This record gives sequence, C-alpha cells and structure tokens, in this order.
Amino acid sequence: MKLFFHPDPTADHTLSEEESLHAVKVLRLKELDTLTIIDGKGSLFEVQITNAHPKKCSFAILNSKKEPKNRTYNLHLAIAPTKSIDRIEWLVEKAVEVGVDEISFLHCDRSERKNINLERVEKITISAIKQSMNLYLPIVNEMIPFHKFISTSRSEKCFIAHLEEGERKLFQKEIADKSNILILIGPEGDFSKEEIQKALENNYIPVSLGASRLRTETAALAACFITNTIKSSE
Amino acid sequence: MKLFFHPDPTADHTLSEEESLHAVKVLRLKELDTLTIIDGKGSLFEVQITNAHPKKCSFAILNSKKEPKNRTYNLHLAIAPTKSIDRIEWLVEKAVEVGVDEISFLHCDRSERKNINLERVEKITISAIKQSMNLYLPIVNEMIPFHKFISTSRSEKCFIAHLEEGERKLFQKEIADKSNILILIGPEGDFSKEEIQKALENNYIPVSLGASRLRTETAALAACFITNTIKSSE
Repeated sequence: MKLFFHPDPTADHTLSEEESLHAVKVLRLKELDTLTIIDGKGSLFEVQITNAHPKKCSFAILNSKKEPKNRTYNLHLAIAPTKSIDRIEWLVEKAVEVGVDEISFLHCDRSERKNINLERVEKITISAIKQSMNLYLPIVNEMIPFHKFISTSRSEKCFIAHLEEGERKLFQKEIADKSNILILIGPEGDFSKEEIQKALENNYIPVSLGASRLRTETAALAACFITNTIKSSE
Repeated sequence: MKLFFHPDPTADHTLSEEESLHAVKVLRLKELDTLTIIDGKGSLFEVQITNAHPKKCSFAILNSKKEPKNRTYNLHLAIAPTKSIDRIEWLVEKAVEVGVDEISFLHCDRSERKNINLERVEKITISAIKQSMNLYLPIVNEMIPFHKFISTSRSEKCFIAHLEEGERKLFQKEIADKSNILILIGPEGDFSKEEIQKALENNYIPVSLGASRLRTETAALAACFITNTIKSSE
C-alpha cells in the first residue's frame, strides 16, 4: 500500500507539492483514483482525487480510521549529532522504524557538528513512518546547547549514557517500571566531565548501554531497541 | 588507541600492505615505535616495529594478552542481502559493534541481489572490531541458495523471522534459555511461502521481532540487539 502524508487532511484537501508530484507524475494517479493518507497522529484516510493537479492535487475524504499506538511507552532521544550527517540521517530512519516519540539535538562541549537541517530530518521521519507503518510521527526539536537542555525541567525519567569512569547502571535494568523515558547520547568524544556533572546535579541517572563500545549513532539506536525489547516483554 | 589487524602475528611478523601503508605513511610510525595488533580471536599484541617498510612493515612481539569474549552467547545471522549494498554494509558494521559471531548470506526466491563482495564485507568486519573493541572477528560465509542452507544440519537453535500469516512466537521470548542461536532474515519481499514451509519442515521456529514492520537490514540488527539485551539480563 502506497501511503501519502498530510498533517491535517480534514482541514486542507490538497496534497503538498512534493506529494502531488509523486501521485500525479510518478504514480500517474488520475481523478477518481483513491489513495491513502496518514497524518502522523495515528489516523489513516481513504481519499479520492478530485483534481489530479501535478502541484496541488486535491482530494475528498471517503473514510478514516484511527489506529492506537503500538507501543506502551514514550521515548525521547536527545543526541549530539555526529560529524557525518549520513550517520545521523540513518539513525533517524532506524529510530522511527523501531519506535521513538521525540528527538532532540544537543550541542555539546565536544560536538563536531554545530547545526542540523531540521527540514531534512523531518522528511526522513515522514518517509520512515510511511515505510514502517508506525503511524505516529515523532516530534523533532531544533538543536540547543547541552546546558540549556539539561536545565529544563522534564516530566520524563531522565538518563545519561556516557563512557567516563564512575558508577553507571545498566539502562535496560533501570527502565523496567518506567514508561516515560528520556536518554541523552553524547558526541563522538563523549560528554565532557562538566556536562556529566551537570546532568547528575539535575537528577539524570548515569547508565551504560551494555558491554560493547558503541558509536554515537549505534548507542542511540541501542536505546530504542533496548526500550522496545524490555517494554514488549512486560 | 590505534589498533592494527593481523590474523596470526606469532606466525608471520609482517603487517599486510594496507596496514603497513597506514602505519608508515599515514601515522608515520618508525623503527622502534610500538603499536597494538589484534588477531580477531581475542588476543592483543604489543609489538615494536623492526623495519618501517611502507608495504611490508615488520615487527617483533613485546607481549600479548588474551581477552575473554564479552558475551555469553553465540549468534549466527543468515540474511538475504538487500538490493542496496550500502544497507548491507551498514548492517555488517552495526552487527559487529553490537555482537555477532557468524554471518551467512542467502539467495532466496525473492532476492534482488544475487552476489556479495565477501572481501569488502570482511574489511568492514575488521574495521568494526577495531572500532568497537569486540575482539572476536565473526565468520563470514559465501552466499548460498536458501534451500541448500536450510537443509544443512545445525547445532544452533534455529529461527526464521517472516511476515506471512500463521503462528509466530516473539523472538525475545524464545531465546531465554538458548545460548547458541541462528536466525534467518528474508529479502525485501519476505521469504516465499515455499521457503517458510521448507524451514518449518527443518524444525526452524517461526518468529516475529516485534510490532513494527522493519526493513530487512533493521530486522537483522534487531535480532542482534534483542539477543544482546535478553542475554545480558540473564
């Protein structure tokens, strides 16, 4: 099933320029053809094309249904993006496939990447929900400095994954009875000692993701997979 | 710590052409400089350069130590490679980081990719063990037809992950008391009905990797992460 994305098809009955192009030029859909739209908030809409315009394809809604989230938890991933943008884009795609609810980008002391193209990240999340049928689009936040992020009060249970010496608990053991989770993943050179100290002062729990030394993007994906595995065992 | 690879430094005291180039030309190491070699079988060797030749850098072993495997299980991943070779190379890198012991490539009914560059895959595994400090190099096998693979008798507990209708158990529940695991991951269009039937006849247990619809390479990595999470909880 080929899916299209529209954030609010009940309010505006026109596909975006990109989606119109895909429907009309690539798939050669015509007036009266039907297609399925997802809104990233759990709903699927069966619609019929009313005007097969290659830039502003309009439609009428035939019917809709809302699917519940197929996960029982809320996971917020806050990461310092890697120098290689490919690795971060890869992570976003995979994290959405596996299950993530919010992604924040951190600018850390040792960050090599100081900016992120949010529009491109959002496109990847949309493409990944279409592909994986995880119908809930994650929230993606602008990059902010670590110290600003850490001092914001949070409703989630907060964790920081780092590689420095000192006591660290095993992440998978700590989330057993938690359903609203935030985990921070550091840059290639890890969080600085000052950042870790600041996180501890703000009641973040220091955790390890296992015995292996993982790259930044693998560690972030590990957090998604571990949470998914533990929560679907409960 | 910059690591070098040599499959048997006690038998042959010369780095490969590629590793010699890296040591002598890139890192500008000289006679009497020391470096660390891993052999992919758990050993680390401290060696001293005896001849800083850019193609045949020779060394003398100063000392060595053997590290135990940091995992208590054996995981064999058998996958039908994706059409995009990038996705498979990515998977190999990540699987080695997370932990995998053997990788086999399957040629299935719906395979779009009918060959694999094994030399390139092996290079990726070597680079990944250096990066992740998982000191055990996985075995990588040539691609073989699904029917040939499935009819070979196995010492592992065997699973097949597929998306067809029918009873499937949750992989993470099935591996609880198993330490020697083989899992088959199908191509982009999934295994054919005949292949699944053939697997069942050979006592493979049909499993699901969770609620999400995962791409081939994400499913393969999910198997690695799930096994790691469950086994390190035991």
